[in-house]
Amino acid sequence: MKLGEIAAALGAELEGDAELEVDSLEPLGTAGPRSLSFVSNPRYVAQLASTRAGALILGPGVPGPGCPVLRVPDAYLGFAMALGLFAHPAMPPPGIDLTARIAPTATVGEGARIATGVVIGERVRIGDRATIFPHAVVYPEVTIGNDFTAHAGVVIRERVRIGDRVTLASGVVIGSDGFGHLPLPGGGVFKLAQIGTVEIGDDVEIGANTTIDRATIGVTRIASRVKLDNLVMIGHGSEVDEESLIAAQSGLAGSTRVGKRVQLGGQVGAAGHLTIGDDARVAAQSGIPNDVAPGATVGGYPAIDAGLWRRVSAAVQRLPELVRRVRQLEKRSEADGAAPGLDARSRDGSERGASARSRRRRR
Amino acid sequence: MKLGEIAAALGAELEGDAELEVDSLEPLGTAGPRSLSFVSNPRYVAQLASTRAGALILGPGVPGPGCPVLRVPDAYLGFAMALGLFAHPAMPPPGIDLTARIAPTATVGEGARIATGVVIGERVRIGDRATIFPHAVVYPEVTIGNDFTAHAGVVIRERVRIGDRVTLASGVVIGSDGFGHLPLPGGGVFKLAQIGTVEIGDDVEIGANTTIDRATIGVTRIASRVKLDNLVMIGHGSEVDEESLIAAQSGLAGSTRVGKRVQLGGQVGAAGHLTIGDDARVAAQSGIPNDVAPGATVGGYPAIDAGLWRRVSAAVQRLPELVRRVRQLEKRSEADGAAPGLDARSRDGSERGASARSRRRRR
Amino acid sequence: MKLGEIAAALGAELEGDAELEVDSLEPLGTAGPRSLSFVSNPRYVAQLASTRAGALILGPGVPGPGCPVLRVPDAYLGFAMALGLFAHPAMPPPGIDLTARIAPTATVGEGARIATGVVIGERVRIGDRATIFPHAVVYPEVTIGNDFTAHAGVVIRERVRIGDRVTLASGVVIGSDGFGHLPLPGGGVFKLAQIGTVEIGDDVEIGANTTIDRATIGVTRIASRVKLDNLVMIGHGSEVDEESLIAAQSGLAGSTRVGKRVQLGGQVGAAGHLTIGDDARVAAQSGIPNDVAPGATVGGYPAIDAGLWRRVSAAVQRLPELVRRVRQLEKRSEADGAAPGLDARSRDGSERGASARSRRRRR
Repeated sequence: MKLGEIAAALGAELEGDAELEVDSLEPLGTAGPRSLSFVSNPRYVAQLASTRAGALILGPGVPGPGCPVLRVPDAYLGFAMALGLFAHPAMPPPGIDLTARIAPTATVGEGARIATGVVIGERVRIGDRATIFPHAVVYPEVTIGNDFTAHAGVVIRERVRIGDRVTLASGVVIGSDGFGHLPLPGGGVFKLAQIGTVEIGDDVEIGANTTIDRATIGVTRIASRVKLDNLVMIGHGSEVDEESLIAAQSGLAGSTRVGKRVQLGGQVGAAGHLTIGDDARVAAQSGIPNDVAPGATVGGYPAIDAGLWRRVSAAVQRLPELVRRVRQLEKRSEADGAAPGLDARSRDGSERGASARSRRRRR
Repeated sequence: MKLGEIAAALGAELEGDAELEVDSLEPLGTAGPRSLSFVSNPRYVAQLASTRAGALILGPGVPGPGCPVLRVPDAYLGFAMALGLFAHPAMPPPGIDLTARIAPTATVGEGARIATGVVIGERVRIGDRATIFPHAVVYPEVTIGNDFTAHAGVVIRERVRIGDRVTLASGVVIGSDGFGHLPLPGGGVFKLAQIGTVEIGDDVEIGANTTIDRATIGVTRIASRVKLDNLVMIGHGSEVDEESLIAAQSGLAGSTRVGKRVQLGGQVGAAGHLTIGDDARVAAQSGIPNDVAPGATVGGYPAIDAGLWRRVSAAVQRLPELVRRVRQLEKRSEADGAAPGLDARSRDGSERGASARSRRRRR
Repeated sequence: MKLGEIAAALGAELEGDAELEVDSLEPLGTAGPRSLSFVSNPRYVAQLASTRAGALILGPGVPGPGCPVLRVPDAYLGFAMALGLFAHPAMPPPGIDLTARIAPTATVGEGARIATGVVIGERVRIGDRATIFPHAVVYPEVTIGNDFTAHAGVVIRERVRIGDRVTLASGVVIGSDGFGHLPLPGGGVFKLAQIGTVEIGDDVEIGANTTIDRATIGVTRIASRVKLDNLVMIGHGSEVDEESLIAAQSGLAGSTRVGKRVQLGGQVGAAGHLTIGDDARVAAQSGIPNDVAPGATVGGYPAIDAGLWRRVSAAVQRLPELVRRVRQLEKRSEADGAAPGLDARSRDGSERGASARSRRRRR
């Protein structure tokens, strides 16, 4: 691609040769004379001196090392947009593979690419330009919008509803039964049939091997522009509102409400029947037992205000020392003529104090 | 369905019109005139006044808002039973699809529904009324009982044994190799062949993308009526005894013993070579390093008695304040004429104390 | 198998009948007269007296109970080697199944076993002796070395590179898109195309349903002899160096560097953009927010030195008691005529102190 074309695509101001041929977009360290690279973090500006990159995406005021520069208002966003120019994702051939099993009552829109072994059940409706990789399985009565992509091995269970421009990575399972089992007083476990469904909005992307369970009754809902990472678990009846991002291996128990623009770090767990307010941020591995206020930043297990959690984490590491200091104070206090004890009433002198001390030692 | 039929199926006492046609079972908020709904939690009884539901399942003594009522001893159990009346799960057509690959030495019982792309290996034995969705793969020499259901993409490795009425959600992998790798003193890693297997009892249900590894030698065992949620990991040689429930994303390392009727919350981890006693309950995200006593309720990382853990969690949040209070006591004690110090022997006055203090500050 | 053959294969010294027929390798407790068993842990030596095993693998100086003995320098390693003699893993038939879909431009080496429903994309190159189970999908332009094994349902995305003797368990997804989503200031979320790839070295084994994301740019790298357990998540741009072992359900966020011979316990999470040094060990469920020094042993959330973490965990459990003891000291100090307070400046007598106390109580 010519550098001038890239500049035009990014809306960048070009400082240098528009005819330069660029083959790849690479990190600073591995970029060569036919690579485009970028710096957005001020920490890495010093590395510009030694890069062999043929051209650079740079923000305002960052001096280039001499090669052509694509000058943009935000270098990271410029890089993000440039990625799209160099992407060449694999696609199944146009049309419907002869081995795909499309039910006679199913409808698939124009421009579909449906690969070998794909199964589409009765009364499924899929919009235009669907791209479905090998062996994905769509159970009956599912509805899917336009520009749908499902990678190899995706499974969508019956009656799930999916919007436009949704992408599902391999191994995603949508609409599996929720975990509803009632231990009976006399023994045995009663399975609750899961008769609800899952609804997914527009522009949603879901990572590999993530599972979203159908509701017991009603709907498990993933709103538009939500992005879920890999191996995430969304429990039955939960809702994730618009533009929220959930990192890998996080899990929502049943009936969790996640607001708009919430960000959950990796391996977060939320107990069910609670609400995480709009714009909240949750640190990785946090455990959320109760509601989180809108705009709050929380961390820890159980999760508390993130700033407090950082102070607590630092203090916890000094806890063995604190225990020694308290013991020391107790000894001092005792030596001053009073029993320390656990009990305010033990003012009966050193003997009682000594026996309290030796009891503690024996534990 | 007529309300009278539902009453009969639930063994409910009908207060109202037996001829009422009911189409769906819905939450109070979305229920309409042709919906059945329910209240079991006393918190929601007030909402009865405003529901548009056509009929309600209610427990003894709960006054209805005027519509017909199905009166039952336990409203939640009544609801649970009603769910089954409204379930209409997707099923593959009866018979064995022409594209399914059944080995000539495999046997499949009567009433099977085996979908496109299913693979059943040599010498596999499957009982009656099996329902196997597209692309599930059963390796050779597996034995499976009656009324088996495997959703799309399930994988069952060689020689696994499965009982009656078992349901596996999509993406479940049973009998994969255990994680047995021995780092060698001189470098390199020796892989231990995993020659054991997995045994699963009757009435077991396993959630989407859960994995159960085969034992190195011997058996990984899931007893009857155990229910595993999604993305659970059962390590090699572990055992889960009858009626235990394990929530999503929990993991058992190798050779963990889980007793009967145990309940593990989500994202719990159990170190290997330990026992969790019958009827124990483990809070979500707990880490279990050692045995848990039968009947115990534990939580935390590492897990301790759940009541203590709640008190500890509350106290931890006030730890920075506690540190300040101890420092204040030390200053008081020092001002009273003695060194605080970390060491009981430092009774030599303010100079030593001051230097101990400044050392602490320098950290 | 005759015991003499086993002795020869293990390089063991045989004490007893070389002609003894052995059918299986079993734990001490279930071993019968035609089973071989072993003891490596001194704790279990006492059980030798009651075993019914036909023969035993024992280390130097461990007295046998009378049956034939295979004497080896390290009984556990001897057992590990013996496992290989009793393994008989399932294999697809030799050759390429007629239903496998191999692109015309793909090349597959000699000795392949490629099962029903396998899909191999354009320009894929696979070495000799590949074993690929049903429905595994290899996207275009993937390169794979010799002696490759992929179990049913594996998915390998476009352009991934894999070395020799690599084994992928069922449900593994290699090269799925990294989680790169940029919330825009004015609303909306911009998806970063993920144009990098994944490289996997030699002798790597990857557990069921584990996912390894492709880098945004550059490479996500898994070095030779790395072993990953089930349900592990390797984020985009991360690197795991030689001979490291990562237990189940652990996750690395983006751009994490894991050194050589590192061992991560189960459910560990590492924040991105950090380095875990060579030979480090991380306890199960730890959360790693920062670099870990080479050779360090860490645990906790956030992770700290493992020895300190053990002491801290013990001290934390006594924190409610410590709070009571500090309150007691404050009361003593106050009774001695001074205000305790949170503030060193509050030396104004008992009234102020009392009001501080009552404020604390009201919380």
